[in-house]
Amino acid sequence: MLFDTITAISTPLGEGAIGIVRMSGPDSFQILSEIFKPFKKSNDVLENRKMYYGHIFNNAKMIDEVMVVKLPSSGSYTMEDVVEINCHGGMMPLREILALILSKGARMADKGEFTKRAFLNGRIDLAQAESVMDLISAKTEIGFDVAMHQLKGHLSEKITQYRDNLIGLMAEIEVSIDYPEEDIEEITYSKIESTLANIKNHLNDILEKSKSGKIIREGLKTVIVGKPNVGKSSLMNALLKDSRAIVTEIPGTTRDVIEEYMNISGIPIKLMDTAGIRDTEDLVEKIGVQKSKFYFNEADLIIFVLDASVALTKEDHEIMSLVKNKHAIVIINKTDLESKIDMNAIHSVLMDKTIIKASIQNELGIEALENEIKNMVFGNEVEVNYTDIMSNARHIQLVKDAEKNISDALNAVHSGMPYDFIEVDVKNAILNLGHITGESVEEDLMNTIFSNFCLGK
Amino acid sequence: MLFDTITAISTPLGEGAIGIVRMSGPDSFQILSEIFKPFKKSNDVLENRKMYYGHIFNNAKMIDEVMVVKLPSSGSYTMEDVVEINCHGGMMPLREILALILSKGARMADKGEFTKRAFLNGRIDLAQAESVMDLISAKTEIGFDVAMHQLKGHLSEKITQYRDNLIGLMAEIEVSIDYPEEDIEEITYSKIESTLANIKNHLNDILEKSKSGKIIREGLKTVIVGKPNVGKSSLMNALLKDSRAIVTEIPGTTRDVIEEYMNISGIPIKLMDTAGIRDTEDLVEKIGVQKSKFYFNEADLIIFVLDASVALTKEDHEIMSLVKNKHAIVIINKTDLESKIDMNAIHSVLMDKTIIKASIQNELGIEALENEIKNMVFGNEVEVNYTDIMSNARHIQLVKDAEKNISDALNAVHSGMPYDFIEVDVKNAILNLGHITGESVEEDLMNTIFSNFCLGK
Repeated sequence: MLFDTITAISTPLGEGAIGIVRMSGPDSFQILSEIFKPFKKSNDVLENRKMYYGHIFNNAKMIDEVMVVKLPSSGSYTMEDVVEINCHGGMMPLREILALILSKGARMADKGEFTKRAFLNGRIDLAQAESVMDLISAKTEIGFDVAMHQLKGHLSEKITQYRDNLIGLMAEIEVSIDYPEEDIEEITYSKIESTLANIKNHLNDILEKSKSGKIIREGLKTVIVGKPNVGKSSLMNALLKDSRAIVTEIPGTTRDVIEEYMNISGIPIKLMDTAGIRDTEDLVEKIGVQKSKFYFNEADLIIFVLDASVALTKEDHEIMSLVKNKHAIVIINKTDLESKIDMNAIHSVLMDKTIIKASIQNELGIEALENEIKNMVFGNEVEVNYTDIMSNARHIQLVKDAEKNISDALNAVHSGMPYDFIEVDVKNAILNLGHITGESVEEDLMNTIFSNFCLGK
Repeated sequence: MLFDTITAISTPLGEGAIGIVRMSGPDSFQILSEIFKPFKKSNDVLENRKMYYGHIFNNAKMIDEVMVVKLPSSGSYTMEDVVEINCHGGMMPLREILALILSKGARMADKGEFTKRAFLNGRIDLAQAESVMDLISAKTEIGFDVAMHQLKGHLSEKITQYRDNLIGLMAEIEVSIDYPEEDIEEITYSKIESTLANIKNHLNDILEKSKSGKIIREGLKTVIVGKPNVGKSSLMNALLKDSRAIVTEIPGTTRDVIEEYMNISGIPIKLMDTAGIRDTEDLVEKIGVQKSKFYFNEADLIIFVLDASVALTKEDHEIMSLVKNKHAIVIINKTDLESKIDMNAIHSVLMDKTIIKASIQNELGIEALENEIKNMVFGNEVEVNYTDIMSNARHIQLVKDAEKNISDALNAVHSGMPYDFIEVDVKNAILNLGHITGESVEEDLMNTIFSNFCLGK
């Protein structure tokens, strides 16, 4: 495939020590030779993979001091000739160098276009390409590990294997359809059934584990609620103390919406918050029950804090009825004081919830809460194998679809339908699994996928 | 000088395609060998200046795919052994690699410490080191050019030359003091006078040009004022159309304060604005005369817009009296309509101001305003030579101090004081000029200077 030459700033925008402008494509080396003068005059022909100190020139005008490297297609990120120019990490040098390269005939890269080329040129498959963005935006070590395993292709291997099995199965079915009279061992329903059932089990297994994958990738959306003075701020501080806090403003969101990340046992906890209601202490009180419901519906987890030293109030009951049908953990705080709370009333309303007795002030109950959160995400497995976790929503949906196709095929088998009917479902399963690794992928979908990338990747 | 090994993230924080972790110091290469495994097993010994693809490992655990390069002290940024690790540009890979390097015995670099080492190891002088941050934070091409000339050492050369002249002069004076009887041609007052006067002229020249330097570096703080509906928003839009607008949020400031940059003829115009009063249309009206005064005092330039088609109001008079003693340009807008404004009243109050007749709607007067701004910054010179412009406030102050020392010396000469008295002033001038290039510089000052750098530079 023949591509043009693309360029982009590949480091995050902002002021930093070093910025990188990158080019990829057939003209990269030529363009570099037109704009770069190495410091040592003897280096007229630049060796591949070697870093050279020198200056970028626009005709006679010197633009910046830089370090450059030529990476030939044989082993570059995109499998094309790549040039990386390391310049001063400010807006002016980056912009001027970019503008100069564009003036020499390169084109501004689309979002994710470098990685798209790595995919189109066959260096990585689509699932691996997608993991690149997950790597970059990972919020915790676990999230990073999951993305890294995906980049290494562990998940792709599995999916490819199931797809190959299905392709093999379909070939056998087709032979039976096409040459029913031939002396070929006809594939029996029971063989079809066992192959399909086996793959279905594997896909179910992936889906089961993917529940934690989504949370690892996007964070567990969490809201702490409770009437004033029950200890919500103390709880937050206690959790923050244990977590290596990551407080992030998500770029691109409005100034009013802030998401704060905490890292609890490797799980990113995304505390939903807005500038208007910074103090979660008074969520219900300040914004009213109606608006709280919105947050409750958005949340993956609600932590409901009660005060054991006072009797239940109308407010507590109101919150209880809101929390009742949500994923929630109940914290009974201040259990070091004389108990005045009606535990039976709580148990009767929140009968299926985990209730943790705590004294946050004395650091009691925090560990239990953290363990409970971990259990919610990973189930009760002692050792979690992150290698197997699928975290990308698109992949998960495709596995779901493929699983549905295979269930349909199995139903067809069970009701003794002709091979042709079974074949349709198997074919769809093959297509869906192929969409994950990009064996079969449409231009539109590809564009959608890569448009989620950051510029310069 | 023996240093320890330092490390830092050298790309701006945020999510990007590529991030760089950098090390500098005697253990850099050793640490790299402990954590990096090249993809091709044959590359066990990494060549200098060559980029290698491979993986960073923490014992058995793979951390990230990276490209690494070893830059030996002979030609590195710091004149020490430097390692650059290009990894995925997300927080997790950058953090994990940084943590790993720290665990191997490197120390987290202070702000600007890489550049400080480049200075301490003699690769660049102090003024050049300081220009590195100016390069990174430059807001316009001119600002960038000025910083680049400074990095190249043009200004340092001049300062060094004047300082050398003064040292030569002092040596001659000392000989005359120490060996008054000897047969050495005694230095005469007139020779001292001519040398000092000559250097004083040069320093005055630098100071004159530095006025624009400060603005090039920090932007011309500008406020547009005028009562409602005189056309302030239209003026802003017209200026924005002509400028390549740079709208920046300055990192580290509170969310309430926003500074918007426009680039007019290469001059960064810093529109002072706050989130609370985004609409400068109503500056006086919304925040009241009292608070407006604060903005007026902070501003380098006030653009005062009046409406020619209506008579002067009480408000206009109020603003006029505020503007009277400030640097201001007056725009008489809507001159395409029938004039009802009392120009005499304006001239009598704002007699020393430039008054531009405009019809912003018809794009008349905008160019005149832009030229006037340029004149204010650069004077009436047709061709501005940016090479000579000193932009750093610390340098400017030191030149001022040196100029004062030389004036004092000249006064001493004129009043026929003994050589010893003159020598004291000359010595101080030498010290002050030496502070610019770092010939003489105290630890404290150096720390202050480099603490303004960004991390990783």
